Amino acid sequence: MSLYTAHINVMPLTELLDPQGKAVNDSLHKLGFQAIQGIRIGKHITLQIEAASAEEAKQVAEDACKKLLYNAVMEQYEIVIS
Amino acid sequence: MSLYTAHINVMPLTELLDPQGKAVNDSLHKLGFQAIQGIRIGKHITLQIEAASAEEAKQVAEDACKKLLYNAVMEQYEIVIS
Repeated sequence: MSLYTAHINVMPLTELLDPQGKAVNDSLHKLGFQAIQGIRIGKHITLQIEAASAEEAKQVAEDACKKLLYNAVMEQYEIVIS
Repeated sequence: MSLYTAHINVMPLTELLDPQGKAVNDSLHKLGFQAIQGIRIGKHITLQIEAASAEEAKQVAEDACKKLLYNAVMEQYEIVIS
């Protein structure tokens, strides 16, 4: 068994409004960052998984996402194992 | 000028407790995910930047982090431009 690190990004679905991102976008513009647009804000989760292989670790991370870490109605996730 | 995408991770400093991560850690254990440990939860921010080069885009993203997106007392950030 080895210890793998999973990096999980949970982001609002692209079809949905992201009020937090919109608010930060407006704030950045007020601060003079006119070159910035299209901000979206989600969660970045890192965790360690004890598993026999990277594939098994990814499967555990997927299960954890589906059972707790993301809301399928509003969010999508991506997992990178290292 | 091109449009670059910045992926920014804002995470709690490793020396600090992460109560949200701790709570999720405990919840995952209750759900049977004993192989998971060391959860830390931060923010994942994506944004578009109009800039002449990737270096300039990264500089703009750094400035935005320092002025608004992260709290130096409690958080660290990393930026990837694509």
